[in-house]
Order: sequence, then C-alpha cells, then structure tokens
Amino acid sequence: MATAARLLLLFLTAAAAGGCSASAWEMNIRLPTEMLSGGDGEGVVAPLIHALRPLLGSGGLLAARAGVACDSWRLGVEAHNVIGWKTVPARCEGYVGHYMLGGHYRRDSAVVVDEAIAYAESLKLAGNGKEIWVFDIDETSLSNLPYYAKHGFGATPYNDTSFREYVAEGSAPALPETRRLYRRLLQLDIKPVFLTGRTEDQRAITVTNLRRQGYSGWEKLLLKPAVHAAGELQGSAVAYKSGERQKLKDAGFTIIGNIGDQWSDILGAPEGARTFKLPDPMYYIG
Amino acid sequence: MATAARLLLLFLTAAAAGGCSASAWEMNIRLPTEMLSGGDGEGVVAPLIHALRPLLGSGGLLAARAGVACDSWRLGVEAHNVIGWKTVPARCEGYVGHYMLGGHYRRDSAVVVDEAIAYAESLKLAGNGKEIWVFDIDETSLSNLPYYAKHGFGATPYNDTSFREYVAEGSAPALPETRRLYRRLLQLDIKPVFLTGRTEDQRAITVTNLRRQGYSGWEKLLLKPAVHAAGELQGSAVAYKSGERQKLKDAGFTIIGNIGDQWSDILGAPEGARTFKLPDPMYYIG
Repeated sequence: MATAARLLLLFLTAAAAGGCSASAWEMNIRLPTEMLSGGDGEGVVAPLIHALRPLLGSGGLLAARAGVACDSWRLGVEAHNVIGWKTVPARCEGYVGHYMLGGHYRRDSAVVVDEAIAYAESLKLAGNGKEIWVFDIDETSLSNLPYYAKHGFGATPYNDTSFREYVAEGSAPALPETRRLYRRLLQLDIKPVFLTGRTEDQRAITVTNLRRQGYSGWEKLLLKPAVHAAGELQGSAVAYKSGERQKLKDAGFTIIGNIGDQWSDILGAPEGARTFKLPDPMYYIG
Repeated sequence: MATAARLLLLFLTAAAAGGCSASAWEMNIRLPTEMLSGGDGEGVVAPLIHALRPLLGSGGLLAARAGVACDSWRLGVEAHNVIGWKTVPARCEGYVGHYMLGGHYRRDSAVVVDEAIAYAESLKLAGNGKEIWVFDIDETSLSNLPYYAKHGFGATPYNDTSFREYVAEGSAPALPETRRLYRRLLQLDIKPVFLTGRTEDQRAITVTNLRRQGYSGWEKLLLKPAVHAAGELQGSAVAYKSGERQKLKDAGFTIIGNIGDQWSDILGAPEGARTFKLPDPMYYIG
C-alpha cells in the first residue's frame, strides 16, 4: 500500500473512532422552531426538514475511498436485496448520517415523488370518491430524523421506549416531498389514507403531529391495535398492511397508489395499482 | 453564482456537449482477448469484465455538482420507482458510462451476490435434485457492456438489429459476481436454470457464449420462441417469465432463488423463495 493511502486510511480510522461518532452529531442538533401551518405551507420556502447539519462534506466519498462500500450497501437495501438487518453496519453510521442530512436523501426522495405525481396526473380517474392513495407515516409522511440523529442513524439497536417518547412529543417534521404529493393528490380528488405501524394509543398525538406539519383532509388514519392487546401485534408488517389494504378494497375503495419507505409497506396483494419506495437506510421492518 | 462555480458549469456544459459523447467512449474500446475456461476460472484473477475504461474519474460527482441528479434517477430505477423509460436521459449518459465502467457497478453487484450466497448457504436444503435457482442472462450472467459502450450506455434507442449482431458474436463477457454465485450454487447442489428473453434462434450461440465464459452444468436453458413465431412474443416480460416459472413449479421444481437485472425478471408469482435485483441503469424491460 502506498504511504499516502496508508495515511488516509489512518485518518479515516481515527475519524470513525472519534470524530464521526453519534455524540459528535448531537452537537449540531437544533430542533425546528417553525411549524408550517396547514393551508399555505406550499408557498413557504422550506428546503430543510430539520435543523441538523452534517459535520463534513461527504462521508460517503470518504467511506468509499477507504474501501467501505456503504453506498453499495444502501443500494442493496433500497432494491430489496439486503433484508432482515437489525442495525446499520457500524462502519456506515457516518455515511448514513451524511446521506440523510445532506442533500442526497432529499434529492432521492424528490425523484420518487416526481414519478408519483406524474403517474397520478396521467390517470383517467373515475372521480367517484372511492379512489385512494395509501401513505405510510414514519419516514414517509413524517420524518424522525431528529430522533435518529441522536441514535446513530440506525447504527444503534431500536429502542421502543425512547422512540415512543419521541413520538409522544408530536414534533416530527414533514417529509416535504411526500407532503407535496399529498397535496397534489387532494387537488386531483384522490383521497389519502394513512396506514401505519404506529398503534392506536398514539392516535391523538399522531393526528396532532400530522396537522402541525400541514397534513389535513385525509380519508382514514389506520393504526395498529394498541400494543397491549394480546396477540394482536403478531405477524409481519407485510401481513398487517396487506390485510388492511384488502379491507379497503372490500369496502369498495380503489387503491390508486401506495407509498412507503419500507418494502413491507408496498409488498403483498393488494399492493395498489402502483407502488413507490422512498429511501430509508436507517432501519428495516420486515 | 460565484465565478468559480460559473466556470465549472461552463466546463461541464462543454464536456456534456462534446467530450463525453458516445464517440469519445469508443476511443477506449478494446475487446477482451482472453476467454476464461470452464473449470479453473475461479482461480483466475479477473477484476474486469471488459477492457473498457472511463475517460474521467467520476462522471457522477461532476454531474451532481452541475445539479443533474443522475444518481437519484439511477436509485429510482433500481428501487422500481422509475419505470417504463425508453432510454437513459441524455444528460445522464456520461454518468451511467462512468458508473458502469468504474468500480461502482461491480461493487453494487458484489453486494447483491454476497447476499445471495449468504442466503443460499443458510438454507436447509432437501437435496432432492429438484431445487433450482433461476438466472437471467443479459446483464445478469453475461454482460453486454462492450455493445452498450458503443451505443451511448442506453442513451440511444434500442436497436434490435445491431444488438442481435452483437449477440451472434458470442463474445459477451461474464458478470464475474454472477458466475461466482452460479458456481457456489452448483457446490450446494442447487441447480441453475437460465430463463432469458433471448429467442430460440439464439440458442446455439448463447450456449457457446455461456461455455466460453465459464458457465456449465445448468439444468435448463429456457429461451423465448423464435422471433418470427407469430403472436408468440406478445405480452410483457413479467407474464412470460412468471409463466415459465409456473411451469417449472408444476414440473416439481422448487425455486430457491431468482436473480436478474430487471424487475420483470423477479416480479410475478411464483417469484421464487427469494429474489435478487442486480443493478442495470442502461435499459428497462417491462
């Protein structure tokens, strides 16, 4: 190995051990102070969904130079090749953090939503009031980045207690791209239906959070039975969500589209006439 | 805009207009002279699947700096959000070329194959000789990069005549990652089945090409009816391939896995117990 390359590697190793750890991220955290109101949010220039900033320009490139293919790992996740993982690989915490906080995540999300809007606008709709679009909530309609930035961007194991505490604040910012899709669909008379892994005991705060972030006029908000209803939370997310979509279909609704950040949001019949997968390299739900 | 940024943009515009066009790529093309033999190919160090080289270090980064989100477009393709496209966006020809010829494509492919091998090795197999793995051919088992490098990496419309002439040479190199999976599966007594959109009239040269590139011992090679069999080529790739997989199932085979570069290779029941999507930003088959 050339000396220069060896020095670079040493630097990167040191950075991974210290400078890019979770605690370093926390120094930059300021929660959003401005809530968007429901009606006129479209006109507000809101390029960021949080007040977090990456510490360096590009963790991805640095990681790639060190031979750590975190971008290939992320692609594997997004294309449903890498499944069943519990945490982000430790070496990729910095990469995922930079991806999420830099412009890359937003750009990737915008492409998905642009496709979804072009698709919706191309449809010849029946206009019978029964045409719906299914939205997941976490990392789809609302972003939990302020939480995950404090918890290693998914590199530390999921902690149900602390995550529920965060949800109970009702402070999660909207993912602006998804809100843009949501509002366009309302204009097209396609009714939004939220279908989430959040539980019934979180209904009130979820409604509050959604409204605070400019979501209104949904057709339904479907949550899982409360966490203590014995036996109800068994089974996979795919089974739960496809079961709920089947009920919607049985009730006479046509699922025009379906968007989520997890493959378990969009796999399993009836999937919806077309499905959209938003990026999420922070966690996996099977 | 800062002067430096304006200058960079001017440079990029000039590069896009001239320096990165298809003709520039051709200057670098040398076809592989060394064919790998069947038995001992595993031991041969073959880091490249072609003798093509990118002209610049990273088209992706340059394109991103110019505000062209070709990497987001590519992610949209790989995650099945961007569908039904006819050609690579003209602005992304350079990006896709660099992606395919640099190490990125190989790294992304390696992650997919690593997952597939780990999955196969984790299985408790019946060992009844009826356990199969479905392989697509083009951009999965064999790489047509030497052809696409001369045709804008998918930025020019598909030309059936010239592509068939290329296939008739039987010179397509293996995608080394897929060949690695193929050989590991044979060791595990999982039988490979090729299922391809190539047609019966291309059977002989396809067999020759596969053998030249170190593939042997497959259970079946399933091709589409010859191109002139009227009516036979109607319908989508999903319908054709899922129909063939159903026949395999009906014949008593268990489809352990299924790998392809197109979503139409792996969507449609029976998909196989698990599916793997290799990267391909050059073309879309629906």
